[in-house]
Amino acid sequence: MFTIELKVRDYECDLQGVVNNARYLHYMEHARHEFLQARGIDFAALAAEGVDLMLTRVEVDYRRPLRPGDVFTVSVRVERVSRLKVCFVQEIRRADGELMASGRNYGVAVRNGRPFRHVPLLALSEA
Amino acid sequence: MFTIELKVRDYECDLQGVVNNARYLHYMEHARHEFLQARGIDFAALAAEGVDLMLTRVEVDYRRPLRPGDVFTVSVRVERVSRLKVCFVQEIRRADGELMASGRNYGVAVRNGRPFRHVPLLALSEA
Amino acid sequence: MFTIELKVRDYECDLQGVVNNARYLHYMEHARHEFLQARGIDFAALAAEGVDLMLTRVEVDYRRPLRPGDVFTVSVRVERVSRLKVCFVQEIRRADGELMASGRNYGVAVRNGRPFRHVPLLALSEA
Amino acid sequence: MFTIELKVRDYECDLQGVVNNARYLHYMEHARHEFLQARGIDFAALAAEGVDLMLTRVEVDYRRPLRPGDVFTVSVRVERVSRLKVCFVQEIRRADGELMASGRNYGVAVRNGRPFRHVPLLALSEA
Repeated sequence: MFTIELKVRDYECDLQGVVNNARYLHYMEHARHEFLQARGIDFAALAAEGVDLMLTRVEVDYRRPLRPGDVFTVSVRVERVSRLKVCFVQEIRRADGELMASGRNYGVAVRNGRPFRHVPLLALSEA
Repeated sequence: MFTIELKVRDYECDLQGVVNNARYLHYMEHARHEFLQARGIDFAALAAEGVDLMLTRVEVDYRRPLRPGDVFTVSVRVERVSRLKVCFVQEIRRADGELMASGRNYGVAVRNGRPFRHVPLLALSEA
Repeated sequence: MFTIELKVRDYECDLQGVVNNARYLHYMEHARHEFLQARGIDFAALAAEGVDLMLTRVEVDYRRPLRPGDVFTVSVRVERVSRLKVCFVQEIRRADGELMASGRNYGVAVRNGRPFRHVPLLALSEA
Repeated sequence: MFTIELKVRDYECDLQGVVNNARYLHYMEHARHEFLQARGIDFAALAAEGVDLMLTRVEVDYRRPLRPGDVFTVSVRVERVSRLKVCFVQEIRRADGELMASGRNYGVAVRNGRPFRHVPLLALSEA
């Protein structure tokens, strides 16, 4: 499975002293883009050409809060869910293996405001 | 229904030129906290006392992208889902009424690392 | 003087319980872009045409920390500092008038990687 | 000199397609906190004890924009500037050595709303 390792940055924590809920989406986005890059799909280059990889839905379960100094991994696995859409199945685990959050994040490729069959994206799914 | 009005700030947009997906969680969080404040529940004051209102799960559907200059509303409605947990049902609508995103965001109150029955939170649900 | 009013959002605060230092740059940027818009200069539309309004330097003095719930204003005034460059002189004041932060933020217009004389930008200065 | 290596995350870029100006403050903050940690000063632990390390002023010169995919380093060096205050002298360099931004960021330790002589902080300066 594709995995990146990150470390909590203090500014990512909010006044409760733990990582803010929206940051988990940032972590997962960064892992997806690194994964796409490793598979030859460049998010920024596509955007410059008018092809936008966009989320249609996110589902995130928060299990335990990430705290200042925590080192963690973010994983990415892709499932095909329809003719146009994929689901990025993602987990955030602390360095000790503890599951901190898990996500099912659905995405499509969009050109001129319309979803279309972006073959490299759809080919990422294992099935 | 409780509603706040906001305007997209350019720095909230990413290299695709539209509001980044994680920002919608920020918009929804801000609306929730304003809603809680209006009901006499102060998120920051509670955190300072050791009571953390935390999300356990978010589900967000992205319908249409918010763009630079867009004015929009974020609404909040509360459903009770278990003895300890509530669901904040939220919509983001552009000023012309178009639905941009909707969310079902589940929360609990936590003290000493454990969810507990925070009566004012649970009393927010309409039912 | 051009001024906008904002309110601290809880997610803008960090683990010290006050607004994080980088957020003040966001507040000042948003005020500048609203100011530019009011003067007929559209930051996002220019970027889409290949004209980037960019900062070359920021100087920010932090006087007192903004806290959860604070309402504040951000002002903008423009000074011409060279043939190509302007300085946005900005203040952040809490609703009670207290000065929280002040900034001198220098900007130029860039096209094809080079600063150029963008007449509407340069005409913003009062002198 | 103390240095950390980071990589631009796409969400840190704004609609101009380059890293947003406020993000440089985040990069510099993260480098400072890692530096402090390496010297035995824990920013988050201090905040929990009521000691806040706070910036009083930042000066950042933006030389060249960081772009999606860029790998870069952030350095930290400390100068003593008064009885209570230090200056973090920081540089952001792209992996090829190009200087992207430099900062002079002034900080003090604050307890009960007042700056005080925090000996470990003041001892960080080389002089």
